[in-house]
Amino acid sequence: MVHSLAVSWEGDHLRALDQTRLPFEENYLVLKSVDDYIRAISEMQVRGAPLIGIVAAYGVAQAALNGADADFSRFEGDVRQAIERLRASRPTAVNLFWVLARMEGVLRANPDRSPSELAQLLLAEAQAIHREQMEADSRIGELGASLIPEGSELITICNTGELATGGKGTAFSIIRQAHLQRELKQVWVPETRPRLQGRLTAWELTRERIPFRVIADTMVGWLFSQHRIAAAVVGADRIAANGDVANKIGTYQLAVLCARHGVSFIVAAPESTFDPDCPAGVDIPVEERDAEEVLRLGDVPVLPEGYPVWNPAFDVTPAELVSYYVSEAGIKHGVRAPREQKEEQ
Amino acid sequence: MVHSLAVSWEGDHLRALDQTRLPFEENYLVLKSVDDYIRAISEMQVRGAPLIGIVAAYGVAQAALNGADADFSRFEGDVRQAIERLRASRPTAVNLFWVLARMEGVLRANPDRSPSELAQLLLAEAQAIHREQMEADSRIGELGASLIPEGSELITICNTGELATGGKGTAFSIIRQAHLQRELKQVWVPETRPRLQGRLTAWELTRERIPFRVIADTMVGWLFSQHRIAAAVVGADRIAANGDVANKIGTYQLAVLCARHGVSFIVAAPESTFDPDCPAGVDIPVEERDAEEVLRLGDVPVLPEGYPVWNPAFDVTPAELVSYYVSEAGIKHGVRAPREQKEEQ
Repeated sequence: MVHSLAVSWEGDHLRALDQTRLPFEENYLVLKSVDDYIRAISEMQVRGAPLIGIVAAYGVAQAALNGADADFSRFEGDVRQAIERLRASRPTAVNLFWVLARMEGVLRANPDRSPSELAQLLLAEAQAIHREQMEADSRIGELGASLIPEGSELITICNTGELATGGKGTAFSIIRQAHLQRELKQVWVPETRPRLQGRLTAWELTRERIPFRVIADTMVGWLFSQHRIAAAVVGADRIAANGDVANKIGTYQLAVLCARHGVSFIVAAPESTFDPDCPAGVDIPVEERDAEEVLRLGDVPVLPEGYPVWNPAFDVTPAELVSYYVSEAGIKHGVRAPREQKEEQ
Repeated sequence: MVHSLAVSWEGDHLRALDQTRLPFEENYLVLKSVDDYIRAISEMQVRGAPLIGIVAAYGVAQAALNGADADFSRFEGDVRQAIERLRASRPTAVNLFWVLARMEGVLRANPDRSPSELAQLLLAEAQAIHREQMEADSRIGELGASLIPEGSELITICNTGELATGGKGTAFSIIRQAHLQRELKQVWVPETRPRLQGRLTAWELTRERIPFRVIADTMVGWLFSQHRIAAAVVGADRIAANGDVANKIGTYQLAVLCARHGVSFIVAAPESTFDPDCPAGVDIPVEERDAEEVLRLGDVPVLPEGYPVWNPAFDVTPAELVSYYVSEAGIKHGVRAPREQKEEQ
């Protein structure tokens, strides 16, 4: 069985930690219908590009298991409908599309199996996807840690840890491994409005006993003026063929500030996040989410209802601002020289 | 009498709109003791560099009026103590020090007056300071509006309107005047964590019927990628002799993003904000405020108590990033070419 903090398969359903209640409450969701999976993804009870992919894979398996008693054509219709609906649940994350294509491939490659056999194959595939992510995460951490000098101060954005991937995380896995090997001085955590995923990172850093401080998103530039930051380590939702990176809103301006201050900008993502079919950042559709996320903070009104708001969930960082890409397959140099190189010049 | 939305003198006390309850409730505070004034300033029930100065001036007058029945030496001691305590209430705003020096000057220039005569002179001086600010604000608006092309999209930060100055505002006065003269397309309002003063700006824009949208602070960079913004118009808490600008945290990174995207960066401030005795930005003490402001949003916990936080209230934008300074005395060119110049090259 494949178990992780964020989600685990419990025989006939998925158990998922409700991330909208953290860091105050650890509540677990029971996902049993395709509707449950779609709601969990679209309401961000589970989130993070790799984890969304994993949950979607389990969602397809769930649809298959729930429909395994039907005749084949009804069964196949149910599973394909689940795939279509899950595909529409978050438009920016490429892992989601890649995972769903892989699940669909299992269906297509086994036309002679019975619904119940197919359901078991789909569940096995979902678990394989989950397991592979966990392995990729560990490898990303090991590789990426080599880029982090001893005693560094790092900055990240959003959440890229166990809660985001179902494994050890992407950017967070690098931070964690760097701390295990060479003790970090401090990790700076922008709170990352509107959804405040930075607090999930703070919660994960607390669990790992890594020293950190939370800042408001307005404080990143001044931080770079006042502290010597070794690197920004961030995740990605999709990486275009030209190296442009779609990630949580705020990543682009963090990259601009890194460039001004000579701070390395490291993008950590599994290979599945690289999208060779997407030529450049301008081709990545950016999800715009409900105004409520800006108008409220959880249940609390920040602004009166009806105030006009813009709420893009992602932005695109041009490749020219990236120092390194780290995946389980290795480290690739980006266009922008990292801090060390810059100082050697 | 001098009346304004933010504060007005009511015969024997100051009436102040409690800005911590906006935009949901319009509650008015009655300030009658020096403690009331200090609390209002330090808890940001009143805020904005010019308004803080005005409230401090009225606070000195209040101390004088409250102590006018005492003998001269007791009276003078009370007033001087009020000045010292008010001076310590917010370390970054230069208007505060300038105003208090001016109030102290009245005390020093009139050693032969009785306490009750001096109290009346101090009240008259506070009202003169308030009136002069209102006049300066109007002039800043008229001058600055000439820099804004017709139908522009603008961005600002924090709040610089009536609530911040006791007059028509500084940066906000420019925005308001530009809209009256040449109709703006849209004003973009970053919410400006941790205190969310952006929502005060949203409330003021609603009152003026100027089209606007609120964004989270993470969205500024992406906004510049997606929309053609004519200028950022911001206020200042102190401007050093070399042109470096201390202002609300987040201003510096806004200026960096303006530079990358060729957006004019306009600083609006009364002459009293220019501090010739302060050589450069590094000489400006930056106030660090209580962790609670990041840990909570109003009464609502964002993070569990005890999570480590950094909360600088201001940052310093180097002069090289400023396109224009606008005061009631005129427009001064900054170092960085504004958008129009750039395009003509």
